Amino acid sequence: MIKTDILIIGAGPTGLFTVFEAGLLKLKCHLIDALPQPGGQLAELYPKKPIYDIPGFPEVLAGDLVDNLLEQGKQFKPGFTLGERADSIQKLEDGTFIVTTNKGTKHHAPVVAIAGGLGSFEPRKPILEHLDFYEENGVEYFVKNPEQYRDKRVVIAGGGDSALDWSIYLADIASEVTLVHRRNEFRGALDSVEKVQELKHLGKISLITPAEVTGLRGTDTLEALVINVDGEEQLVETDYFIPLFGLSPKLGPIGEWGLEIEKNAIKVDNALDYQTNIPGLFAIGDVNTYEGKLKLILCGFHEATLMCQTAYKIINPGKKYMLKYTTVSGVNGFDGTKKQAPKPVVQAIV
Amino acid sequence: MIKTDILIIGAGPTGLFTVFEAGLLKLKCHLIDALPQPGGQLAELYPKKPIYDIPGFPEVLAGDLVDNLLEQGKQFKPGFTLGERADSIQKLEDGTFIVTTNKGTKHHAPVVAIAGGLGSFEPRKPILEHLDFYEENGVEYFVKNPEQYRDKRVVIAGGGDSALDWSIYLADIASEVTLVHRRNEFRGALDSVEKVQELKHLGKISLITPAEVTGLRGTDTLEALVINVDGEEQLVETDYFIPLFGLSPKLGPIGEWGLEIEKNAIKVDNALDYQTNIPGLFAIGDVNTYEGKLKLILCGFHEATLMCQTAYKIINPGKKYMLKYTTVSGVNGFDGTKKQAPKPVVQAIV
Repeated sequence: MIKTDILIIGAGPTGLFTVFEAGLLKLKCHLIDALPQPGGQLAELYPKKPIYDIPGFPEVLAGDLVDNLLEQGKQFKPGFTLGERADSIQKLEDGTFIVTTNKGTKHHAPVVAIAGGLGSFEPRKPILEHLDFYEENGVEYFVKNPEQYRDKRVVIAGGGDSALDWSIYLADIASEVTLVHRRNEFRGALDSVEKVQELKHLGKISLITPAEVTGLRGTDTLEALVINVDGEEQLVETDYFIPLFGLSPKLGPIGEWGLEIEKNAIKVDNALDYQTNIPGLFAIGDVNTYEGKLKLILCGFHEATLMCQTAYKIINPGKKYMLKYTTVSGVNGFDGTKKQAPKPVVQAIV
Repeated sequence: MIKTDILIIGAGPTGLFTVFEAGLLKLKCHLIDALPQPGGQLAELYPKKPIYDIPGFPEVLAGDLVDNLLEQGKQFKPGFTLGERADSIQKLEDGTFIVTTNKGTKHHAPVVAIAGGLGSFEPRKPILEHLDFYEENGVEYFVKNPEQYRDKRVVIAGGGDSALDWSIYLADIASEVTLVHRRNEFRGALDSVEKVQELKHLGKISLITPAEVTGLRGTDTLEALVINVDGEEQLVETDYFIPLFGLSPKLGPIGEWGLEIEKNAIKVDNALDYQTNIPGLFAIGDVNTYEGKLKLILCGFHEATLMCQTAYKIINPGKKYMLKYTTVSGVNGFDGTKKQAPKPVVQAIV
């Protein structure tokens, strides 16, 4: 059982900034995310895209913003349960919660903050017979650990940035990389398209287009794919098949937690602390809704900050918290670090 | 008469970020501030201090944050009325407002946003006979334009960073710089104290301590100061006297505008758009209050953003606005510039 003060469901920008604001109040956070890395959409869908509406950043790459938020929170030592989806919640008699993931990991906390963005990102899967059987037996929807593919044969399917970028990345690791796409044209960053072109000429990536994977073969694990190329079926031997057809966000099991849902989002009290209809359970960032709601990262930052104040009162009943400015009081990390503005000197000039 | 869409009272971080969010909605902003430069407290009181709780910045100097916010908004060409305090407001029959400053400058706008922070910063003045008479006749509380002091004699009073820093800065411009302080000890950044020490040794700054200015002399304009040094009075000839004894924030004339005031702050509707009890008049950032309010810069950013949505509806009645993401749609400046994420290419790999 993982124990923490604030259990955050969703490690996107709002969830990550919560770590910092909670830390200022000496509250510890643990984050659960279905994706294999923190950062949510920003890290998974558009790490190289610039964002222009983060206050104070005329322009920032989504991936860099995630790195900055991780850096800002790291002294508060957040815990992470990654690659697992929060599936069920149980409210105990003392008002605390137990949240269990799809892999059975249990988390216990007095406060739960859902910062789930548009929902958990579920991969769009190809429609193939026996797909279930081969999942985690050769079929993967995310590249969690590239080393897993060292000296293995890998077939990637897809025509967008993920398919291009992982083909490039794995070309140096895998023994064979084959990229299958149903069109000749790829849609992605210019330099990614050019790099795949170059690796193809060097013989480091095999391209099969226009083509589609239509069958999976193998006794215990995946051994080969049936690929339909222009109406003709070929058998291609491989150790791994990674279809990268994009992700679609789903509110998922959270929708069954007894929360008030409106337009696929969780209704919260925006006049106070972004609490849901279940006391102690909050929803912050894009996952929540209220009159006038804007699904903007900067709004999530504010919601997270106000939420932490009520979390503090729940966790420290009767104790009063005084707002301190970081410029004045500095930041005391849970790892013993202290950040502080340089103190003025008092010195005679003679 | 200056005309704009959103008239912002206060050019601190919240006011500056409003320019950007309003710009995304094609609304133009004009800012009034009593201080001679934008940035509010951050620029005036602690430009060199680090702030740790701006989301996405593990650490940022207050002055740099101001520069970033100015840069982020500049393509929306905000107007500024600086060094003037918003004194009176008049609501016209058509619901628009006229705001007049202490210098008589008039501004006309359908929407007014008070982003006045803790209030307008009024200099702490020395208690001296005939002070009023010499104000703007040799006595100044801010250095607005350093060139004004070129080849003039300047006496600065004070023992903090402002007094130290302006003494250093003007040492190269003025013909004489004298620094008067009631103690021998100064309180400031180490490098400023050391620099003044060095300039004193080089004969570029005269130091009179422990001492106090006790009288002003001059027929039409300031000609000399009476300075009490250890109980003895000296007459020091000078063209300018700049007492830098700090600033104290005052809600000031805004307190008389018919707004609902609570704890020296303006009550707003935080459940929707941070509107005050006067329709079309909003209060955002540290100047407002509501249940659970936190006086944090990041909260001002959120409040400004939500406020702009209602401003849009007031200015464009009946027109519907669809939220667009800057990552997807880019940012179209009023100056003809366009910022945009690189578009993906669609290209065959052969």
